[in-house]
Amino acid sequence: MSLPQEWDIPPKLREAIMYSLEAGGKRLRPILVLTAAEAVAQEKKARKQALPVACAVEMIHTYSLIHDDLPAMDNDDYRRGKPTNHKVYGEAMAILAGDGLLTHAFYAVTWAAALGASAETTLAIVSDLAKLAGAPGMVGGQAADILGEQGVTSLEELEYIHLHKTSDLIVFSVLAGARIGGANRQQLDSLQQFARKLGLAFQIQDDILDLIGDEAKLGKPVQSDVEQQKVTYPYLIGMEESLALVERLTQEAKKALADAKLAMPDYLLAIADYLMRRDH
Amino acid sequence: MSLPQEWDIPPKLREAIMYSLEAGGKRLRPILVLTAAEAVAQEKKARKQALPVACAVEMIHTYSLIHDDLPAMDNDDYRRGKPTNHKVYGEAMAILAGDGLLTHAFYAVTWAAALGASAETTLAIVSDLAKLAGAPGMVGGQAADILGEQGVTSLEELEYIHLHKTSDLIVFSVLAGARIGGANRQQLDSLQQFARKLGLAFQIQDDILDLIGDEAKLGKPVQSDVEQQKVTYPYLIGMEESLALVERLTQEAKKALADAKLAMPDYLLAIADYLMRRDH
Repeated sequence: MSLPQEWDIPPKLREAIMYSLEAGGKRLRPILVLTAAEAVAQEKKARKQALPVACAVEMIHTYSLIHDDLPAMDNDDYRRGKPTNHKVYGEAMAILAGDGLLTHAFYAVTWAAALGASAETTLAIVSDLAKLAGAPGMVGGQAADILGEQGVTSLEELEYIHLHKTSDLIVFSVLAGARIGGANRQQLDSLQQFARKLGLAFQIQDDILDLIGDEAKLGKPVQSDVEQQKVTYPYLIGMEESLALVERLTQEAKKALADAKLAMPDYLLAIADYLMRRDH
Repeated sequence: MSLPQEWDIPPKLREAIMYSLEAGGKRLRPILVLTAAEAVAQEKKARKQALPVACAVEMIHTYSLIHDDLPAMDNDDYRRGKPTNHKVYGEAMAILAGDGLLTHAFYAVTWAAALGASAETTLAIVSDLAKLAGAPGMVGGQAADILGEQGVTSLEELEYIHLHKTSDLIVFSVLAGARIGGANRQQLDSLQQFARKLGLAFQIQDDILDLIGDEAKLGKPVQSDVEQQKVTYPYLIGMEESLALVERLTQEAKKALADAKLAMPDYLLAIADYLMRRDH
């Protein structure tokens, strides 16, 4: 589900797109799509139909990293242990590689229908993705982050940034998988709570690892938030309180997951526990 | 069909998005969506269902202008007679405004279903848009254009750029309207030919106007292609041959339109004639 070989795409653009898509990473979001689909449906067929959506969310995540790393944004030279996209292909190609990936994500989603998901379900996933990855979602979170560099002062502002910059795409992943798995309204609501809290815990853990993590395991320099004078949870509420918050949000996420009464919740539960304890 | 007021979006991001969306322009692409819908269906209902798709294509066109104008791309200071987005909001916000518009376009498309278009038709439109605006379409054309600045030498390369950078979105507009109007396979094929040739004629006319147009009417400086040493049709094949080509492509477009045997082709025909004769 990358770019079809038969498509006539300028080779340099294709190369720039694939460079970042294949740069590795935890693949957390696609794993959440697949795991949520199976957790609801309890059958392998759902996993197969969810696969293009899993690819789509990784494309969105990857494009957001390419654009975030640009000189005009965070100006980062390394990502996942490799030079950032614009360092290799130049700024213009990096902007276009990001635009291409963002657009192709929606093409990938439509493939769920080709694999047997209903047109209605697939369209609901398109709508979710456009909202949660767009101006009221991830792009809004990134904008608030950039604007906030001129002085985030409140926990409320910081929560807005984290919820949208990070949680929204995690919420999308869980909801999209669940939709393909055939979740009912009540299950979707509970899973949305689960993913929202999981995403917030994930981002606070990211803030914590930037301060006390291992550079080699993270694949990026630590203390970069401090250098860039970014306001983070540890900065605003202290390290001890941040660690406790990750623990509390994870418990709340697990409670919401239990409320969803899924056929097979075990792997989602394991992911929540893993994320809380991760060191990279 | 712009950004819903109740969505919690950072005000500066919303402002940057609306600044470019409301900057005017010919609105050719949305007009083509609406006109194609009515030409096929011959009823007002189709026009209403096509409206969100018309908005979507203008969002895509607008985001592409915002990103194209960036310093790392064409580095333009004026667009549609106003300072470009990054000149007003800075590069970071311009990148994000573009990303937000691109993403929101897909949200807008899903609204066609809320207005009564079938989920299958709406999903086909999502798929068309993702392909024709993405790496194998508009983004690919833009990449070829940027890469070509290091030396486009053949008419074939230039045609690739024009077909993808410009025609693809015009093809999308006509196909999307026709799909909503209920076009059959043969009609879609003929209309694709119509739009492809119309788009190519449109772009060659753009090249011509950049050389001999009126700056006030165009809302942007003329001779910018010459200054940027861009290879254009007049540069490659001469002015006289370029003018003849616009005329020939327009005739071929009109022939393809006739082949589509639409209920009400008159307005599409008028648009083809208007574009050939336009001075801005």
